[in-house]
Amino acid sequence: MIQIGLIGYGYWGPNLARNFSSNPEMKLAAICDFSPDRLKAAGRNHPHAKLLNETASLFNDTSIDAIAIATPVSTHFELAKKAFESGKHVWLEKPMTEKVEQGEILIEMAEKKGKVLIVDHTFIYTGAVRKIKDLIDKGELGDMIYYDSTRVNLGLFQKDVDVIWDLAPHDISIMDYFMPYKKLTVSATGSHYYGKEVIPKALLTIYMENNIIAHINVSWVSPVKIRQTLIGGSNKMILYDDNEPSEKIKVYDKGVEMLKTKEDIYNMQVQYRVGDMWAPKIDNIEALALETQHFVDCIKGNKKPLTDGRAGLEVVKILAASKISLAGNGIPIDL
Amino acid sequence: MIQIGLIGYGYWGPNLARNFSSNPEMKLAAICDFSPDRLKAAGRNHPHAKLLNETASLFNDTSIDAIAIATPVSTHFELAKKAFESGKHVWLEKPMTEKVEQGEILIEMAEKKGKVLIVDHTFIYTGAVRKIKDLIDKGELGDMIYYDSTRVNLGLFQKDVDVIWDLAPHDISIMDYFMPYKKLTVSATGSHYYGKEVIPKALLTIYMENNIIAHINVSWVSPVKIRQTLIGGSNKMILYDDNEPSEKIKVYDKGVEMLKTKEDIYNMQVQYRVGDMWAPKIDNIEALALETQHFVDCIKGNKKPLTDGRAGLEVVKILAASKISLAGNGIPIDL
Amino acid sequence: MIQIGLIGYGYWGPNLARNFSSNPEMKLAAICDFSPDRLKAAGRNHPHAKLLNETASLFNDTSIDAIAIATPVSTHFELAKKAFESGKHVWLEKPMTEKVEQGEILIEMAEKKGKVLIVDHTFIYTGAVRKIKDLIDKGELGDMIYYDSTRVNLGLFQKDVDVIWDLAPHDISIMDYFMPYKKLTVSATGSHYYGKEVIPKALLTIYMENNIIAHINVSWVSPVKIRQTLIGGSNKMILYDDNEPSEKIKVYDKGVEMLKTKEDIYNMQVQYRVGDMWAPKIDNIEALALETQHFVDCIKGNKKPLTDGRAGLEVVKILAASKISLAGNGIPIDL
Amino acid sequence: MIQIGLIGYGYWGPNLARNFSSNPEMKLAAICDFSPDRLKAAGRNHPHAKLLNETASLFNDTSIDAIAIATPVSTHFELAKKAFESGKHVWLEKPMTEKVEQGEILIEMAEKKGKVLIVDHTFIYTGAVRKIKDLIDKGELGDMIYYDSTRVNLGLFQKDVDVIWDLAPHDISIMDYFMPYKKLTVSATGSHYYGKEVIPKALLTIYMENNIIAHINVSWVSPVKIRQTLIGGSNKMILYDDNEPSEKIKVYDKGVEMLKTKEDIYNMQVQYRVGDMWAPKIDNIEALALETQHFVDCIKGNKKPLTDGRAGLEVVKILAASKISLAGNGIPIDL
Repeated sequence: MIQIGLIGYGYWGPNLARNFSSNPEMKLAAICDFSPDRLKAAGRNHPHAKLLNETASLFNDTSIDAIAIATPVSTHFELAKKAFESGKHVWLEKPMTEKVEQGEILIEMAEKKGKVLIVDHTFIYTGAVRKIKDLIDKGELGDMIYYDSTRVNLGLFQKDVDVIWDLAPHDISIMDYFMPYKKLTVSATGSHYYGKEVIPKALLTIYMENNIIAHINVSWVSPVKIRQTLIGGSNKMILYDDNEPSEKIKVYDKGVEMLKTKEDIYNMQVQYRVGDMWAPKIDNIEALALETQHFVDCIKGNKKPLTDGRAGLEVVKILAASKISLAGNGIPIDL
Repeated sequence: MIQIGLIGYGYWGPNLARNFSSNPEMKLAAICDFSPDRLKAAGRNHPHAKLLNETASLFNDTSIDAIAIATPVSTHFELAKKAFESGKHVWLEKPMTEKVEQGEILIEMAEKKGKVLIVDHTFIYTGAVRKIKDLIDKGELGDMIYYDSTRVNLGLFQKDVDVIWDLAPHDISIMDYFMPYKKLTVSATGSHYYGKEVIPKALLTIYMENNIIAHINVSWVSPVKIRQTLIGGSNKMILYDDNEPSEKIKVYDKGVEMLKTKEDIYNMQVQYRVGDMWAPKIDNIEALALETQHFVDCIKGNKKPLTDGRAGLEVVKILAASKISLAGNGIPIDL
Repeated sequence: MIQIGLIGYGYWGPNLARNFSSNPEMKLAAICDFSPDRLKAAGRNHPHAKLLNETASLFNDTSIDAIAIATPVSTHFELAKKAFESGKHVWLEKPMTEKVEQGEILIEMAEKKGKVLIVDHTFIYTGAVRKIKDLIDKGELGDMIYYDSTRVNLGLFQKDVDVIWDLAPHDISIMDYFMPYKKLTVSATGSHYYGKEVIPKALLTIYMENNIIAHINVSWVSPVKIRQTLIGGSNKMILYDDNEPSEKIKVYDKGVEMLKTKEDIYNMQVQYRVGDMWAPKIDNIEALALETQHFVDCIKGNKKPLTDGRAGLEVVKILAASKISLAGNGIPIDL
Repeated sequence: MIQIGLIGYGYWGPNLARNFSSNPEMKLAAICDFSPDRLKAAGRNHPHAKLLNETASLFNDTSIDAIAIATPVSTHFELAKKAFESGKHVWLEKPMTEKVEQGEILIEMAEKKGKVLIVDHTFIYTGAVRKIKDLIDKGELGDMIYYDSTRVNLGLFQKDVDVIWDLAPHDISIMDYFMPYKKLTVSATGSHYYGKEVIPKALLTIYMENNIIAHINVSWVSPVKIRQTLIGGSNKMILYDDNEPSEKIKVYDKGVEMLKTKEDIYNMQVQYRVGDMWAPKIDNIEALALETQHFVDCIKGNKKPLTDGRAGLEVVKILAASKISLAGNGIPIDL
């Protein structure tokens, strides 16, 4: 039985607590939060967990095997560092750290201490993303050509991060999972609404080796929630719409290829699509439940998680480059 | 009765011919095309029009009042120049010209000769775009904040232009119509598929004065046709989906504003939208019919068309800047 | 504080238990179920509730004020009768009873004993249905003309009821709420799949006074889940789609009226709709939470619930008539 | 070259004229209409056709091989009879005739005279319907279980027919094409809006042998246009949505079957669908062009059309029975 302590019971923490609790090989031993109200709420839902308003006793508690960190990103590095120093396994929310060097240090620490570091890129564990990865690995899509995602909704408010740090990590981690190729250059553009502090809307381009490209559109100022991702391969293409209740993945029997005949070209212009479409059945196990079990398995088997430090760092690298590019109105930044 | 001659009977020409023919104040006097097959087709549909396989006799025909040019963009400048030299009014397909200077010359010629120059940005004359413009002009949306458009479909084939020159003129002209503000800087990124020749997929960012921003996503390699435009104002926002048969415009009763209370923020995170939505009735007069009549009215009243040379040139300027930016992987180009 | 006991912890019971628990004026005192497994699950989620595997001690417990019955319909009458005899208020699942006479007896008992009888037609308490009712009551729709609902999904399995008893109560109760007019005649048709026992697919027509008509299509053998209801008024019409995440209600600015001009008729044939559409914001309070509070208020204020015995009986009468009509292949049955 | 004369140039006639004209083996020799305006319009579009304001000269013209009748249904029988008497092949609009006996006489006449009689059930020739038929014939769907269609829109106006005669023939002919089984009994219910004359909304149930059932919902008083058909087989089911621009047919990998395990039942209740979905590519040849060619082929090869007199008569029989059932509020009528 793995004893886990959770730091942070705000927006996401309760979901972690619920999943840790219901995993048969894990015990939610303690919950730590600075807000008395949140701690009270934590107590109501998890009467058997210790409630703490400081973190020191958590790190010092030798019965604790692992620590989950669901606090603002600016605190990730210090908390994770202490956790490794105390000999704990670490579950870290996304984005992993504020700075690239911080991420590199954490990866090294995990390595040295022989502890598991999982970065919570939850989408990687959803039925939809796993299904697409499976199709890519089987070669169904052919060579990867592009990733194009729109992730927009209402949500403009003062946070410690801008919209890219808030929404883009989802897409960057999914893209990196589907296209594990060298990322070369980043260009980002965005609006500067209400002065320089807030960037509520941005475009991100990531150039990869093999001429693969990713386009990511994130916004907090869309009147509707859109979650649309196109994944282009040389043999087939996919539309993944996370808002769709029943047809999240549509696989199109058509790849990115040059048209040759006049008739093909004409058909393209008058038709909505070419070829068959297939919407595979997707399992609907809760992603966090699966991820929790994966964390348990990695601890028990001393294995690297799917979303390990390296995966987390890749995201931070791209976020950091995009920040510089944004300030330069799209100027390309090499990685 | 305005006598018009049409040069080019390829993909778009037949639509022009049909609309010119059915306008009660216009007569389609001649159709010119180099392909014998197309000329034959023109003859079947328009038995009363003269059929020509060269342009000289058209320019020399003094009974012809106006010339419509629906040929590849590389020929636009020379043909339009000759038309003005022959004292004709000009209907020019989009994009207006290949180069900015060419566009400037044509504007000057039209001015000097006292002739009408209309650039065929057809979308400006659709019921949907006119309705949105009307709402903006009435102040319903408040201050303009952003324009964000996705215009993607299958269509990868060797043309004389890349995807930005093919698809982006629609959005640039619509954006310029809704947001007639100074355009400052352009950044464009895109894939280089199948060697350097073809760019089938690109993102375009246009920075305007007043911190207004436009994001345009164009692609020939999407398995599905998407035509989604978000228009953000400080009071209301609009989703304009040109694929929707019955609800092309959705007006959301919510503007781009900072959230203040915790409750608002929470609601944003759990809801799909906030406030009412309203889908106004849109008239469905064919845009080209309306544009044809507008051309007639401008000729008769000696007026500037809505989509005049200036409007056409604005598009060419942004296309030209985006070409340079694209080659530099997003490097910002001031206009 | 109202002490409530729950009988039945199967498919729906857990939802009741959860809502009863979180209501500040109610205490979930006991849960009763014959299955040891379900009782164990009940204990895990509600550690403070007494767990019972028989009902007698519940009826005899004088500290219990109200009893909720979430068992198969065949047991409703006997259990509710005993509850009233024991002086309890009653929350009864839908459909209220198997037979019309049973429903009449329960209504009479509630009256005599001065106790509250609520029938759990949950949909009546949803934001969408309340919003539509509000529009109807304000006269926005004009005179009621028709109700037309499609409620189909996969779900074919041996139950103690056929598809009409399973799915139609939702629509009958909503229809009766929107159109509180005298119901005159019922005609029902359906398939007899797998022998006489199972009727997985049926149509129901209810003729009302004032020439109002209701058409209800229910099915357990649809490959997709459809929840579409059209409500026609003389001034406006509504499309209520319960599957829609963000636009559950669409109000069309067009009523049921005779077209007069040729132009109107032509427009009808070529257009998808006429007039504006408006999708009002709907509150998303959980219907059961609202209904629980309503039950509390009725007990405290000695008032009739919105979904009282009369409302429940109306549904049973129509179900009973439809059963006879079904057996006669649509033969009309007067109510 | 088959010389054809067209009677009736109203709503549908122009579509026939256009398709007859462009068929390479057919010549549109004459167009006949009583309205001078329509005849003028016919002349503009078909300058080579003779224009007639009476039918006698058409029947007497021995150079005419075939006659197409696109007039109100009340005139179909007399015109078709005269056409056969004059030794012509006949293209007859739907519904074939007003009365069953009239249809039987026409079938007999065609037989005796050795002439082709095609009834214009256009939908049978669409890509979507042909694709579904193909899947059924290949056994993909297994045994036929049900047909369920919703065909509603705005369109309430005084015609010579009610909504069943206007809209249901489409569904009845498609159903009969997919399910060529003996039709046993009909039940129909509908509203009687604005007095007895107009029935703008109706439900139709058709009982077939093998326990197959068809449910058809037609309406002129829906605020939105819905064209949704479910086709249930023992192995697979289809959703055919004629409004969908790109996914008209969705084939669900799930048949009508009894669930056996508790887990299956639970999954049904929480999921939108079970199994994969597949949207085959559909060819988009215009149905009328295909039907015109089929008519030509039948004349040349002396063959029975797919939509022959028998197919047309089946529709009329069901319409006639439904009229009686409607008047009796759903009373079942044996065929």
